[in-house]
Amino acid sequence: MPSPNQPVPFTADDYRARMTRAAESAAAAGLAGLLVAPGPDLVYLTGYRPTAITERLTVLVLAAGQDPVLVVPTLEAADAEHAVGAPALTLRDWTDAKDPYAVTAPLLDAKGRFGISDNTWAMHLLGLQQYLPGTSYASLTEALPMLRAVKDAAELERITAAGAAADATYEEILKVRFAGRKETDVAADLARLLTEYGHSQVDFTVVGSGPNGANPHHEAGSRTIERGDMVVLDFGGLKHGYGSDTSRTVHVGEPTAEEQRVHDVVREAQEAGCNAVRPGAACQDIDRAARAVITEFGYGDRFIHRTGHGIGVTTHEPPYMIEGEEQPLVPGMCFSVEPGVYLPGRFGVRIEDIVTVTEDGGRRLNSTARELAIVE
Amino acid sequence: MPSPNQPVPFTADDYRARMTRAAESAAAAGLAGLLVAPGPDLVYLTGYRPTAITERLTVLVLAAGQDPVLVVPTLEAADAEHAVGAPALTLRDWTDAKDPYAVTAPLLDAKGRFGISDNTWAMHLLGLQQYLPGTSYASLTEALPMLRAVKDAAELERITAAGAAADATYEEILKVRFAGRKETDVAADLARLLTEYGHSQVDFTVVGSGPNGANPHHEAGSRTIERGDMVVLDFGGLKHGYGSDTSRTVHVGEPTAEEQRVHDVVREAQEAGCNAVRPGAACQDIDRAARAVITEFGYGDRFIHRTGHGIGVTTHEPPYMIEGEEQPLVPGMCFSVEPGVYLPGRFGVRIEDIVTVTEDGGRRLNSTARELAIVE
Repeated sequence: MPSPNQPVPFTADDYRARMTRAAESAAAAGLAGLLVAPGPDLVYLTGYRPTAITERLTVLVLAAGQDPVLVVPTLEAADAEHAVGAPALTLRDWTDAKDPYAVTAPLLDAKGRFGISDNTWAMHLLGLQQYLPGTSYASLTEALPMLRAVKDAAELERITAAGAAADATYEEILKVRFAGRKETDVAADLARLLTEYGHSQVDFTVVGSGPNGANPHHEAGSRTIERGDMVVLDFGGLKHGYGSDTSRTVHVGEPTAEEQRVHDVVREAQEAGCNAVRPGAACQDIDRAARAVITEFGYGDRFIHRTGHGIGVTTHEPPYMIEGEEQPLVPGMCFSVEPGVYLPGRFGVRIEDIVTVTEDGGRRLNSTARELAIVE
Repeated sequence: MPSPNQPVPFTADDYRARMTRAAESAAAAGLAGLLVAPGPDLVYLTGYRPTAITERLTVLVLAAGQDPVLVVPTLEAADAEHAVGAPALTLRDWTDAKDPYAVTAPLLDAKGRFGISDNTWAMHLLGLQQYLPGTSYASLTEALPMLRAVKDAAELERITAAGAAADATYEEILKVRFAGRKETDVAADLARLLTEYGHSQVDFTVVGSGPNGANPHHEAGSRTIERGDMVVLDFGGLKHGYGSDTSRTVHVGEPTAEEQRVHDVVREAQEAGCNAVRPGAACQDIDRAARAVITEFGYGDRFIHRTGHGIGVTTHEPPYMIEGEEQPLVPGMCFSVEPGVYLPGRFGVRIEDIVTVTEDGGRRLNSTARELAIVE
């Protein structure tokens, strides 16, 4: 029996239900079926994660009313048979000297339109297009944007636990020394803490001190953190197969009035983004709500990324909280709300929580203080 | 000045020369240009390796007579500017609210045929196909199979050094205890040794003991290695950006006559494969030479994978030594020769060296003893 901290494992029946629902959604969207590549879609639908993603074709073929078939290289068939979802699948293996598209083609409607995993290798799509010129394709995100977006109770339990572990990590990092240490040292502390709090995979540990914080894509470098620095912390990974992702910006010693003001603006923007979450709001409404605050205070051109992204079996996935994304929010969706302001050559501020959509609004899955923390 | 063990770093001019040659090869193959995705092709051509590969489009556009352009998300532009090859590139960045295909399309001949990196995300290929319906595409491996296959002296120096580090790792692993330890313990030893001998990245550490050795795709598991086991070791990674990959099969204590016989067969097959290497031979000839020996001794149906694969900025790339691959060998190519015999439920044997094609034959870049080593 799992300990209280261990979620009940997913079963083959869980994966069977997900595959059935995916095939039905595809049919409802007018698709002949789905082609699912190794990566998050395949993990979500079958629990199978190949040891490595190579040029050898592995693809799950789903179509309403048909049994799911996993086309897999013979070399990897033994691994695939051990996936939790394998009992819900028929395996069709192909050896190195065979044409994998010839093995896959008979499983497909030769005139059908298929949704295909975004991250499928182009060489495989070209192989299928060449073999079955009557078929057409849409990226899975475009065709079925909601496939993995709405989390059920078991998934929400995992994302909540991952968020709590990230929060515990933040509480601990506030106690470590910043001044005089390299960004990479603090990043290593973050990675160690995430792991101690149960993460099996650390995806990113951003430590952006001083001017490095003004590059939202900066990870962690050899810069020595100094007294007087703002430091953007953004970290997350996977715990029990589901993601965490949170950001806080801290200050080494007392901030200047300007630093405090920028932080206040971002905090108010993040609050506005979170408060805009409710069923039926569009994804872009979350972006607009956060951006309006930052623009009002004159930093609109310094908020140079979208406001958020979904989270689930990855730490970064659709839906995106971005202008132009009209997808309505639905209870069970989980995504980040993470506005920021970046002053080139000087400093940056970002504050991020994961939020889940509830029946009557949104609920944060990160709950550490959002006020500017002073570290040593 | 680099120490004797440090290769001379690649420069922007080196990358410029590679991009020029690639664009010229594309034109000679009748292509309007090349579209290069993050991954080994982009590392090879520019030295740029994005922190993470996400759904945000990054693509290098190469065409003969045009300056190379790297389309990159604004968020990642600062990183891209730091790539060694950046001075040879024009960066064209796009922000989250823009359509990246609209940014890329004007760089392309709207009726052209393009080679595109095998591992480009299908969603990007679909985006370009939709935006420019008059274009057509071929996977880069199919269109320009030789793009990264022939190594120059600076690359060969790195692959040779990586091979020597893998050899040193093997010599050391023969001294560790096998009996009574788990496969994963020996795998951790291999990873530690590869790192100690200068690898910056460990790609795989296969330890296949007893029946696990009969699954050529097995990595390392919780099985405790016992006296009397055959153990397949297959390990490698990147050192100074270039790959190593070698396999030896060892025995815990004295082998049986059958175990020794199977090992002798694989060793003779591996020798035959290596001896078949010479300029002008086809890739499939290497596979045939190795396979003929195994078939002659009655194990033909137990050799269930191709004989080898190329190596370079990855540990696993074209060309493939496989029936049907008629690509002629050219001096400077580097690839594995790794036949095996797998007896389900009992044991496996694999022996692997990296071989480079020379003017008058082939030269192994791994030189540890291929006789069956006895370990404790």
